[in-house]
Amino acid sequence: MRFVISVYVENKYGVLARVSGLFMRRGFNINSLTVDETDDAAFSRITITLNGDENDKDQLVNQLKKLHNVKVVRELHKATSIERELMLIKVKNSRENRSELMQACDIFRAKIIDYSTETLCAEVTGEPSKINAFVEIMKPLGIVEMCRTGIVALERTHHIAEELE
Amino acid sequence: MRFVISVYVENKYGVLARVSGLFMRRGFNINSLTVDETDDAAFSRITITLNGDENDKDQLVNQLKKLHNVKVVRELHKATSIERELMLIKVKNSRENRSELMQACDIFRAKIIDYSTETLCAEVTGEPSKINAFVEIMKPLGIVEMCRTGIVALERTHHIAEELE
Repeated sequence: MRFVISVYVENKYGVLARVSGLFMRRGFNINSLTVDETDDAAFSRITITLNGDENDKDQLVNQLKKLHNVKVVRELHKATSIERELMLIKVKNSRENRSELMQACDIFRAKIIDYSTETLCAEVTGEPSKINAFVEIMKPLGIVEMCRTGIVALERTHHIAEELE
Repeated sequence: MRFVISVYVENKYGVLARVSGLFMRRGFNINSLTVDETDDAAFSRITITLNGDENDKDQLVNQLKKLHNVKVVRELHKATSIERELMLIKVKNSRENRSELMQACDIFRAKIIDYSTETLCAEVTGEPSKINAFVEIMKPLGIVEMCRTGIVALERTHHIAEELE
């Protein structure tokens, strides 16, 4: 099963290494991870997606809560959260594949942000399943390179930041 | 100075912990970090932004290159790269601030993705400076919580993935 865990941490030296070190010791391989400052520069918010079973996940959440500088740990459920991801993707630009490329960008509302005789760069935003679908469509056209942010997520009704007291 | 480093790693157990452990030992505090799979599931791409001086950064790049499972390390320069970031932001929704909220979303092309009597969630994509500006405008309106992906970046002309040989 895939889990999304949101972690509020104090923006202190070494916090990320402690968090990712914990994942390593517990034998989890993180699928994606994003970390950046919140509106309060004293805190960063880490969003992690990982695969595992319910029991492992519960243990992990408990271990995370014990780490120094970790303030709030919360599992976000798909049904009650908004998940988004951003991808930059560079694809071969040739006369043969151009119209297919343009059509796909149009349908997926991908923005073309760079264009040369050899390659074309697009920016796509959406739920992970949409990003995956776009990657599959681009594969036969020739992906040169790509870069995904990994998931960020907010709950619709619950406000994690309020738990910071 | 702010640096953006792109790291191609084999998608193996513990790679992220090794990379972030290196940052900790060298005394760097990472500003933002994103990691996710590439189109080839055997590889992940890590994008890191950090502050430091030129000398520290060079040393760091050299150290990263020596790590197990790290395949390519490259500094991306602002002038020749495309940088993007995604933010989800939840703001107080009241009769008083609603029109200002809507106007700002319109100007920044932010998408409203959730709306309740108490809060409003927006999704914004763009260069980091645009995201920062949007945060500043939202602050007086009442940010409830927010989640930024951190930067992803691709070079316009150079194709990192081709260095994987």
